[in-house]
Amino acid sequence: MREAAFAIDLGGTELRAALIDRAGDILACATMPTDAKGGPASVMAQIAMLTRDVRDQAPDAAVIGLGVGAPGPLDPVAGIVIAAPTLTGWRNVPIGALLSAQFGLPVHLENDANAAAIGEWRFGAGRGARSIVFVTVSTGIGGGVIADGRILHGRQGLAAEIGHMTIAQEGEPCFCGTIGCWEALASGSALGRRGTCMTRAGDGSILRALSANGAVSGRHVIEAARMGDAQARALVAEEARWLGIGFVNLLHLYSPERLILGGGIANGLDLMRPVIAETIAARAMPPYRDVPLVVAALGGQAGLMGAASLVFSASAAAHDEGDTGGV
Amino acid sequence: MREAAFAIDLGGTELRAALIDRAGDILACATMPTDAKGGPASVMAQIAMLTRDVRDQAPDAAVIGLGVGAPGPLDPVAGIVIAAPTLTGWRNVPIGALLSAQFGLPVHLENDANAAAIGEWRFGAGRGARSIVFVTVSTGIGGGVIADGRILHGRQGLAAEIGHMTIAQEGEPCFCGTIGCWEALASGSALGRRGTCMTRAGDGSILRALSANGAVSGRHVIEAARMGDAQARALVAEEARWLGIGFVNLLHLYSPERLILGGGIANGLDLMRPVIAETIAARAMPPYRDVPLVVAALGGQAGLMGAASLVFSASAAAHDEGDTGGV
Repeated sequence: MREAAFAIDLGGTELRAALIDRAGDILACATMPTDAKGGPASVMAQIAMLTRDVRDQAPDAAVIGLGVGAPGPLDPVAGIVIAAPTLTGWRNVPIGALLSAQFGLPVHLENDANAAAIGEWRFGAGRGARSIVFVTVSTGIGGGVIADGRILHGRQGLAAEIGHMTIAQEGEPCFCGTIGCWEALASGSALGRRGTCMTRAGDGSILRALSANGAVSGRHVIEAARMGDAQARALVAEEARWLGIGFVNLLHLYSPERLILGGGIANGLDLMRPVIAETIAARAMPPYRDVPLVVAALGGQAGLMGAASLVFSASAAAHDEGDTGGV
Repeated sequence: MREAAFAIDLGGTELRAALIDRAGDILACATMPTDAKGGPASVMAQIAMLTRDVRDQAPDAAVIGLGVGAPGPLDPVAGIVIAAPTLTGWRNVPIGALLSAQFGLPVHLENDANAAAIGEWRFGAGRGARSIVFVTVSTGIGGGVIADGRILHGRQGLAAEIGHMTIAQEGEPCFCGTIGCWEALASGSALGRRGTCMTRAGDGSILRALSANGAVSGRHVIEAARMGDAQARALVAEEARWLGIGFVNLLHLYSPERLILGGGIANGLDLMRPVIAETIAARAMPPYRDVPLVVAALGGQAGLMGAASLVFSASAAAHDEGDTGGV
């Protein structure tokens, strides 16, 4: 009988469950819109429903545990969702204990960005590396760090809040209130906002044609740049410069073997690569300059795959009798 | 017989050796000016001389290994000093293998900032924490990170180059060539430079009185601020703001339980604390705001203590049979 893990990806919009085996093969998968306003009890009932569904699809798998990716901040050790901004009523929810009682299985919790980083590390673009930084650039900028063969947690699992490193003393305030966060300067939203500012409805620009004269998004800018539009190309170059400055910081701070870029804006990496490379060459200290920057391999599946691998890693560690705590 | 470790602190100016026991007690210590221009062979001979000296002072100790703190970049796993900027001829020196052959003992190498971080963690202001960031602010800004109970290495041991994170797009170029490095904005040198710019020789200012009409140093600024000088107080507030912005980044990126401040500028922490606290309250996300910022406890001994603890941790890890490599 094939060993498998339940993987849950608890998003503010979509709730997904899968049964995944040790090799990373998805044996079964099911999805529904998250009842984000229904509170924890309703979402827990949805999880029960979805896991029954995937169980029915793969009745032969021997399920050895549950891995959950959920919005942070959360405490991965205590198994508690501290405050999920996109889920009403999710304050200090002991999801680990609740699911463990319900399923009679060990439960492993990780924030969604970390789960995706682990997924890419175990099964995607980070395979084989000891240290990676996974960066996802879409509405915001998030990420996760694998350092020396382990996910970087820090106090309360709050490390690697990379979107909120200050890289400038200028620009629009971030949603967090601060000026100069990487996210405020280099997210897909920031790119779209610049596209909106640079144009106006009905001006005949390619950007506004793509946005049907509405607000321009980061994806529209990348699409227009790909079509050769000069305005969009300038915006993409500026985006690449801000991304490059942040990448240099990540290189200096974490010294990964690979930088892995995911999220919607990663689709434009080919267009941005020359300016990113230029920025890294100009700003990173020599020993950091040759670190590869690669596109994430698992797309939207990274979180589910990472959640599953939490279960398998924990079972391997249990056999090996835990960490030595050495330097 | 008491188990002890040889600890070597290989600095560009001073070379120090000690015998330190498991409790962190220094059984013997010896120092000489580093023959920085003499090349590796000469410095190795100096190390042999100093260790003989401390051995003679504490003949009863049972020496179980050597720990070395040396200027980076270096590869702590391979035991190689890659390129020490302050030591002539130190390129790819396999100091680990050389010392191990000479002493017939296991040798553990760590860059000097990491060694100091480990020292503070094991024996100083970081005791008992699982995650700390040690920041040393003097001529430059350096540091080391303990993350989840281990020193953070990353690729080639190059993580935690915290002085060279970009926090602004303004200011004097850093010695590394980049604009906006934390070090260029917030080091003791930057503070002194601002003091020098703000005054001129013979202007009757307290700053120039303290500097005997020469260039003003960071220490002069702190001293003048302590005397109530308004110019110096304004400079100290500006310094505190830049330090605070960098601390916020470290909180978001590493999520330590404690920030530990060492180096000459740490002497002014009491003066800077109000503005640092204000900056952290204004810019850090809520769950990071209450992390204590404390002064380093070991001063110039941190590196030696850390070097010794490399030996004891490695011997403990050998008994426990290594790391599981789990998530």
